[in-house]
Amino acid sequence: MPQQQLDHSLAEQAGPPASRAMVNRFDPSDAGALPEGDRELLARRRKTLGDIYPLFYERPVHVVRGEGVRLWDAEGVEYLDAYNNVPAVGHANPRVARNVFEQLSKVNTHTRYLHDGVVDFAERFLATYPEHLDRVIFSNSGSEANDLAITIARWRTGNTGVIVTENAYHGTTWLLTGASPENGVAMNIHPWVRTVPAPDTFRDGVLAGEIFAENVRAAAADLSRHGFGLAALLLDSIMSTDGIYPGEKGLLAAAYQATHDCGGLVIADEVQPGVGRTGEAMWGFQRHSDDVDLVTCGKPLAGGLPIGTLVLSSELSDGYAAKHRYFNTFGGNPASIAAATAVLDEVQERDLMAQALDVGAYLQDGIGRLSDPTGLVADIRGAGLFIGVEMAGVDALAQGRLAKRVVNGLRDLNVLISAVGASGQVLKVRPPLVFTRSDADEFLTAYENVLTRVQQEGLTE
Amino acid sequence: MPQQQLDHSLAEQAGPPASRAMVNRFDPSDAGALPEGDRELLARRRKTLGDIYPLFYERPVHVVRGEGVRLWDAEGVEYLDAYNNVPAVGHANPRVARNVFEQLSKVNTHTRYLHDGVVDFAERFLATYPEHLDRVIFSNSGSEANDLAITIARWRTGNTGVIVTENAYHGTTWLLTGASPENGVAMNIHPWVRTVPAPDTFRDGVLAGEIFAENVRAAAADLSRHGFGLAALLLDSIMSTDGIYPGEKGLLAAAYQATHDCGGLVIADEVQPGVGRTGEAMWGFQRHSDDVDLVTCGKPLAGGLPIGTLVLSSELSDGYAAKHRYFNTFGGNPASIAAATAVLDEVQERDLMAQALDVGAYLQDGIGRLSDPTGLVADIRGAGLFIGVEMAGVDALAQGRLAKRVVNGLRDLNVLISAVGASGQVLKVRPPLVFTRSDADEFLTAYENVLTRVQQEGLTE
Repeated sequence: MPQQQLDHSLAEQAGPPASRAMVNRFDPSDAGALPEGDRELLARRRKTLGDIYPLFYERPVHVVRGEGVRLWDAEGVEYLDAYNNVPAVGHANPRVARNVFEQLSKVNTHTRYLHDGVVDFAERFLATYPEHLDRVIFSNSGSEANDLAITIARWRTGNTGVIVTENAYHGTTWLLTGASPENGVAMNIHPWVRTVPAPDTFRDGVLAGEIFAENVRAAAADLSRHGFGLAALLLDSIMSTDGIYPGEKGLLAAAYQATHDCGGLVIADEVQPGVGRTGEAMWGFQRHSDDVDLVTCGKPLAGGLPIGTLVLSSELSDGYAAKHRYFNTFGGNPASIAAATAVLDEVQERDLMAQALDVGAYLQDGIGRLSDPTGLVADIRGAGLFIGVEMAGVDALAQGRLAKRVVNGLRDLNVLISAVGASGQVLKVRPPLVFTRSDADEFLTAYENVLTRVQQEGLTE
Repeated sequence: MPQQQLDHSLAEQAGPPASRAMVNRFDPSDAGALPEGDRELLARRRKTLGDIYPLFYERPVHVVRGEGVRLWDAEGVEYLDAYNNVPAVGHANPRVARNVFEQLSKVNTHTRYLHDGVVDFAERFLATYPEHLDRVIFSNSGSEANDLAITIARWRTGNTGVIVTENAYHGTTWLLTGASPENGVAMNIHPWVRTVPAPDTFRDGVLAGEIFAENVRAAAADLSRHGFGLAALLLDSIMSTDGIYPGEKGLLAAAYQATHDCGGLVIADEVQPGVGRTGEAMWGFQRHSDDVDLVTCGKPLAGGLPIGTLVLSSELSDGYAAKHRYFNTFGGNPASIAAATAVLDEVQERDLMAQALDVGAYLQDGIGRLSDPTGLVADIRGAGLFIGVEMAGVDALAQGRLAKRVVNGLRDLNVLISAVGASGQVLKVRPPLVFTRSDADEFLTAYENVLTRVQQEGLTE
C-alpha cells in the first residue's frame, strides 16, 4: 500500500512524532508576535499547566466570550466558529446555563440515591436509539465510555483483541491511548490492537466498504492467530481523525457483519458524528446499519459539561452487572444531566438535524464550487455539518502543509477550523449545529479569500 | 495473618462476591415496602439504567433537594447528610451555582484556546501543594487522574508494577479496575498489581507504619522477581475503603521512603482526604510526608461537577509531554473550573479546614463517649471530618452485620452514613465540610438511639 509507506516515511522526516501527530499546534517560540496580555497569560499558563497543554494555531485564540456560532477574544475580535462540536447547540446556550443553574441550586448528587432527572433523561435518550439498545451507563467522557465498552466486549466474547482504524483516536485512558494511533508513533499501540485503513471512499470508490470489511476480517484472523481473538471493532462512525469518511449510507454495514462473523462486537464511537450532526440520523452508525452492540458518546452531549454515555442492550448490561461492579461518582450527576436535557430539547425542538442536513449540503456545495477551479483541493466529502476537504499535493507532506496554511489563513480572517488525517491533509469543518446558511456564506467568503491568497503566493511558500 | 484468612473464608461464605463487596446495597426484591412514587421511579430506572446501578440502603433515599448538610426526599422528609464528600462546601452551594451559571452564560470551551479561568485556578490550586509539585493536569474524574498518574509513573520508571492496599479502590477505568480489589473477587486484579494490608493502627499500634513499609518492600521485591519492577505505590492517604486508617502524622512516611528505595514513585490519591477534610492539612499525604511524586484528586473539588486533577513536578510533566500527548476535551473546561474556584473560595475564606478539625474532634469524642459503654464498638479512628467506627463482633462477618444494622438504623432516623472495610465492618462518617457542632449533636442523638435499640434487640437479630 503506497499510502501506508508514505505515512511511515513521513514519521521519520517530519521531526518528533508527537508534534507530527498534532499539526495544528502553536509553537511557543512564536510567542513574541502575540499581544502583551496574551504573552503574559501564556507565560503563566506554561508555568502551571506546562508543555502537555499545546494550543491551536500559529497565533492562539484567547477566548473570553461566545454566543451561538460566535466567539470573542480578549481584544474584542469576533470569530466564526466552524470547528467546535462540544457546543453543539451553540456557545453560551441560555437553556443549558439555566438548566444547570436550577439544578445546582437544588441538589447535585450521585446515582446511589434515587433521582428523577437521570431516569427522565435516560428514557428520552434511549428513545433516540434502535430498540435493541435499551440501557445507558453514564460516565464523564467519551474516554470513560469507550474504556468500559471494551471491557464489556471482552467479558462477553472472552477475547481481548480490538480493531481500530489506522489513524483512530478513541480517548485518553491507558486502555484507549494504546488503541489510538493518532497520538503518533512515539506512543505504543497495545499488542492486542490491530489497525486497518479507513474505508477510502476517495481512492476506492464504491469498493471502499467491501475492502474495509475484508481488512477487518484479515485483522480478526491475525488477532486469533496471535491468541488474542476478536473482542471488538471500535469505530468512529465518521472516522474523523483518519480524514473524515462519511461515505454513502451503508458503507460500514459489511464491516459490522464481518466483525460479528469473527465473533467480535461492534462499538460505535459517536463522539464525532453523534447528536444529529450528519443530518441523516441521530447517530452516525444508523446511516450504515443498526447492527451495532455498544454505542458511546461524549463531547456534544452537554454543552461542555463533562459527560459520557455507553448505550447497549439490557442483555449485555445486566449480564455484565451480575458479576461486575461499575460505579462512577460523577456519572449521571444531576447537573450534567440537566445540561444534556437542555441539549436534547434544543436538538429536537429546533430540529437541528434537519438544519445540519440543509446547511451542511449548502456549505459543502459552496466549498466545492470555490475549490474546483483552484486545483488546490483533491476531494470534498461530508455528511450534514461534518465536512472534510482533502487538499491536493504531490505527497501527503505537501497536502498537510497546504492544509496548515488554509487553517491558519482562515484563523487570520477570524474563522475557526482545524485539520485531520495522518498528515493533517484534510480540513475539518465541523461547526456547532446551529450554524445557518448565512454563517455558511460568511465562511465561504473567507475560504475563497484564503484560497485566492494561497494561489497568489504559490505553493512553495 | 489471621485477618487475611478470615477475609478469604468470608469471600466463600457470603454469597456472590460482587454483592459481598458492596454491603450497603438495596435489594430490589424489597421494593414492595417503598412509597408508590418510589416504586414507579425504581421500575423506570431499572428499565433504563439496569442492574449495574445499585442503590444505597435497605430503603433507598429519593433525593429531590439539598442545602448545606441537609437533603430532602420526594415526600419532604429531611435528612442529615453525614456521608457525602462531593458537596464538600455544602449541598446546593449558591456560590458554586452562581459561578457555573455565569461561566456557562459566557463561554465553555477547551484548553486548546487560551483562557484565563483555568490559569487563574491552576495558580491558586498549586499554591496549596508543596513547592516541588508545580504542574497540574485536568481531567474529569479521580479515575482519569489515577489512570494518567500510573501511565506517567510507568514511563518514568520503565517499570510496570503497582502496589495498592488489600481493599483499595482507585477508579473505574480498565487500568484501575484491576488495581481496585474492593470490587470483589469476581473482578480480576492485574498480574502486575500487588496488594499489601493497610497499616492496621488498631491491631499493630505504633508499629503499623513500619510493618506497612516492610510489606511495601516485600511487594516491590516480588514485582521485581516477576519481571514487572515497581512503577508506583498508589495509595489513598486515608485508606478509606480498607476501613479508614488516618493514623498518627507520619504514619505513611516510611512506606513512601520504601517505595523510592525500590525505584518506584508515590501516587497520593486524595479523592477521600483531600481539600482539608482531615483538618490538619489541605491534602492527606501532607500529614505524613511531602515526599510524594504524583497527587490525584476528584470528588470533592467542584460541587459535583465532574473534575479530576493530577499534580506533579514540572520535571515529570514536561518530561512526559516531550514524547507523549494528553488532551482531555472536558478537562479544565471553564464551567468545572468555575465550580472548583467557588469551592476553593469557600474552603479558604470560611476556613473549613479549621472547622473540620474542630467539629471532627468534637464528633469523634462524642462517638467515643456513646460507644464505649455499649461494647458494640471495637475502635474509633479519624482525622478531622473523616471518622471510622469499627464495630465489635466475634468475626468480620458479625462485625459487618452489626455495621449494616447501624447504617440502616441511622437511615431510618434520617441520618446518612455508610460502611467500609472488606466486610463493611467500619462505619464511614464523612460529612460535608460545612458540618457544625450542632449538626454533630444531632448526629450523636440519632447514633445513641440506634446503639440503644441494637442493644435492646440483641446481636443475634
